Amino acid sequence: MKYLHTMVRVTDIEASLAFYRDALGLEVLSRRDNAAGQFTLVFLAAPGDSTAQVELTYNWPQADGSTETYTGGRNFGHLAYAVDDIYATCQRLLDHGVTINRPPRDGKMAFVRSPDNISVELLQAGSALAPSEPWTSMPNVGAW
Amino acid sequence: MKYLHTMVRVTDIEASLAFYRDALGLEVLSRRDNAAGQFTLVFLAAPGDSTAQVELTYNWPQADGSTETYTGGRNFGHLAYAVDDIYATCQRLLDHGVTINRPPRDGKMAFVRSPDNISVELLQAGSALAPSEPWTSMPNVGAW
Repeated sequence: MKYLHTMVRVTDIEASLAFYRDALGLEVLSRRDNAAGQFTLVFLAAPGDSTAQVELTYNWPQADGSTETYTGGRNFGHLAYAVDDIYATCQRLLDHGVTINRPPRDGKMAFVRSPDNISVELLQAGSALAPSEPWTSMPNVGAW
Repeated sequence: MKYLHTMVRVTDIEASLAFYRDALGLEVLSRRDNAAGQFTLVFLAAPGDSTAQVELTYNWPQADGSTETYTGGRNFGHLAYAVDDIYATCQRLLDHGVTINRPPRDGKMAFVRSPDNISVELLQAGSALAPSEPWTSMPNVGAW
């Protein structure tokens, strides 16, 4: 038995790739644009950890141009990733316009949200980093 | 960078262990009962794949006995696991009283739901099994 992936639905595939790939740092492993089914699937994973994936499901707009919208639910909590340098990861997220909901004031843990409000936890691999500005003084924003 | 876990909130820790551990077949790696924080965390993973985990978060009842309830949201899709014998896995789920929402009629894919309505996809590892009763004739139930 083996964990394969967590699937999340996304309303904007490009905005989601900007978040999961460009800002968070996951790699795109495969992409399937299915015209018959009117959906796109993208599988991503952390570099070097390709067997534990996240699957983005994007349902194409209807013929009238209407799109699906996705609400969140409390039964799902978050996706968690270990990162080599939580400050560098959070800086890259900031540079891509992502709000750091829970900044890594402790050098150890941060939370952000995807464009569709999927909560993502970031944990510093190994020991916490030494507290450092601007993170130490950065307030929480919203919920995660 | 490395995937650590997907966290889900659960309203009944014993019912959730009956599902994720006894019926689905995950192993409990650790459990923390935190009296100060009034919560329990349980980490589980597929046997032999212990680094890709699912975290159950159980918030204890309030002093007045009231408990949290968790709704689902469409932004989260499902957790997916490969299994060695999808018929054996589905039979074990049935034996534990779990509804097979999408039976493995094709010998390849099934969906079930946790007690808190987290959708779980099961995929036969390798090639699909030969179609076999009772699965071939089993209808879909509900949504997944």
